[in-house]
Amino acid sequence: MRLSNLGEFGLIDRLSKVCLCSNSVVKGIGDDAAVVQGSGKKKMLFTTDMLLEDVHFTHKMPGFLIGKKALACNISDIAAMGGIPKYAVISLGISGKEDSHMIEEIYRGISAMAKKFKVDVVGGDTVSAHKLIINIALTGEVLSREIVYRNGAKVGDKIFVTGQLGNSFKSGHHLTFTPRLAESQFLVKKYHPHSMIDISDGLVSDLGHILEQSKVGACLYEDQIPLRKGARVGDAFKDGEDFELLFTVSAEKARYLRKVKKFPMYEIGEILPLESGYFLQDDNSRREKLSALTGYRHF
Amino acid sequence: MRLSNLGEFGLIDRLSKVCLCSNSVVKGIGDDAAVVQGSGKKKMLFTTDMLLEDVHFTHKMPGFLIGKKALACNISDIAAMGGIPKYAVISLGISGKEDSHMIEEIYRGISAMAKKFKVDVVGGDTVSAHKLIINIALTGEVLSREIVYRNGAKVGDKIFVTGQLGNSFKSGHHLTFTPRLAESQFLVKKYHPHSMIDISDGLVSDLGHILEQSKVGACLYEDQIPLRKGARVGDAFKDGEDFELLFTVSAEKARYLRKVKKFPMYEIGEILPLESGYFLQDDNSRREKLSALTGYRHF
Repeated sequence: MRLSNLGEFGLIDRLSKVCLCSNSVVKGIGDDAAVVQGSGKKKMLFTTDMLLEDVHFTHKMPGFLIGKKALACNISDIAAMGGIPKYAVISLGISGKEDSHMIEEIYRGISAMAKKFKVDVVGGDTVSAHKLIINIALTGEVLSREIVYRNGAKVGDKIFVTGQLGNSFKSGHHLTFTPRLAESQFLVKKYHPHSMIDISDGLVSDLGHILEQSKVGACLYEDQIPLRKGARVGDAFKDGEDFELLFTVSAEKARYLRKVKKFPMYEIGEILPLESGYFLQDDNSRREKLSALTGYRHF
Repeated sequence: MRLSNLGEFGLIDRLSKVCLCSNSVVKGIGDDAAVVQGSGKKKMLFTTDMLLEDVHFTHKMPGFLIGKKALACNISDIAAMGGIPKYAVISLGISGKEDSHMIEEIYRGISAMAKKFKVDVVGGDTVSAHKLIINIALTGEVLSREIVYRNGAKVGDKIFVTGQLGNSFKSGHHLTFTPRLAESQFLVKKYHPHSMIDISDGLVSDLGHILEQSKVGACLYEDQIPLRKGARVGDAFKDGEDFELLFTVSAEKARYLRKVKKFPMYEIGEILPLESGYFLQDDNSRREKLSALTGYRHF
């Protein structure tokens, strides 16, 4: 079988079989970040993201924004678990052709993001590469009672998203987004989300992860999906890299959440029993079946 | 300034300025692994290593050994601090041309190494790349009283190494080495090393790190440096990727260590005052000045 057929999820599934996961591992592969035993009432979170030149960014983009994004993706993963980021290690693959100005700008970007979110950059590795590579691994901490997984969505939950979706690449949003850490802390301390994920692959695919792991179905309301300028619903479904939080809360909490002014909170659908399936409903109550596979695919 | 002039240590120096390092960071960039606050009498260690196709390995090498090595390098870093490895996250960059057999073998190798050293692989990221990339970030834990830094070497210390050096690439050792975790635990529990590092860049360069950070000089005894088959002293100095532990202990502990049979322990030199310099001495007491800069350079 070729990798293009296996796909990213096949590879992650394969990786999950590597995991030997002793008792101290609360949650291994398959969520936004791993959860392992911490100290006292806290657990440790652990995640990693790799960005590659000519795959995730080009040499023409500002190094400052590339550096910011590299750390922001990881902070977004920690936020999606309900935690706060702590320590980062950075691996840089650098080709001879990059001048030190570009590297300096990348460091400045990482540094700015680290400062803003109180992340300590504690180590790194630099190697000679053919193209620029940035890998960041980030730990976080989370109170045990505030951890939110992908697998906790319940029938009757309302589905929310923290911001506009679609057109992230063309608009430049993918380089300038702010990880939703403040929103996440607000939610886990007051609204007890049952499930949460950050939207990196597109709404349909990422909600698909919640549904699959929670063993439930869902309906999305087409006219309530917040769209970034220039985006259509199909773009929100497939573009990815929005890095907004997608989460579900009980109908009761949803009533209060609708009145929140502090952060944008868009209600976009409802969790249904598994047998109801996964579909989009327009304002004429017409339904269109959705499939998690129509999301953005890495291979 | 071009990167080739800046060099890896210039880049790491630059990275260390990114580090905002709050009070919870005991040791940031500049040792084999970072040390941050843990729970109780323990500290957390954190390190990362990136391996690239056509830089660190080729597609013709067995995937199983590449996978093993990718994790072993990180375990070696944790061992060099006196700690034990705990949790790993793995980023894989995969090009379309690798078939799933190669990837499967890499996973098998990582898995075998993880199992042997009781590491939990808890997460990962897979991305589409032009050439194969493996980045592993690893946490560890260490008892506060057993941490060994690079900067603790004292005048009068004896310098030891745990195995033969040189010719690591040609002999294939760089793909098949065993990280010296058992040796490290034996040492930190019984012999209280004052300083320690794993030899990745070559003996002269890596001892140079200890000397520079400890602000001391050293003499190496040419005829006591253990050489791998086919290696000469110059190879031990420069080849790198030996992944043996290089450490210093008090003269008193050295007397006992010389009699140890459980693990190979080669006494190769002595720590001197800074003003004595850094040199090699042959069996006719002729001296040759050494420079940390003659070690293997990444750029």
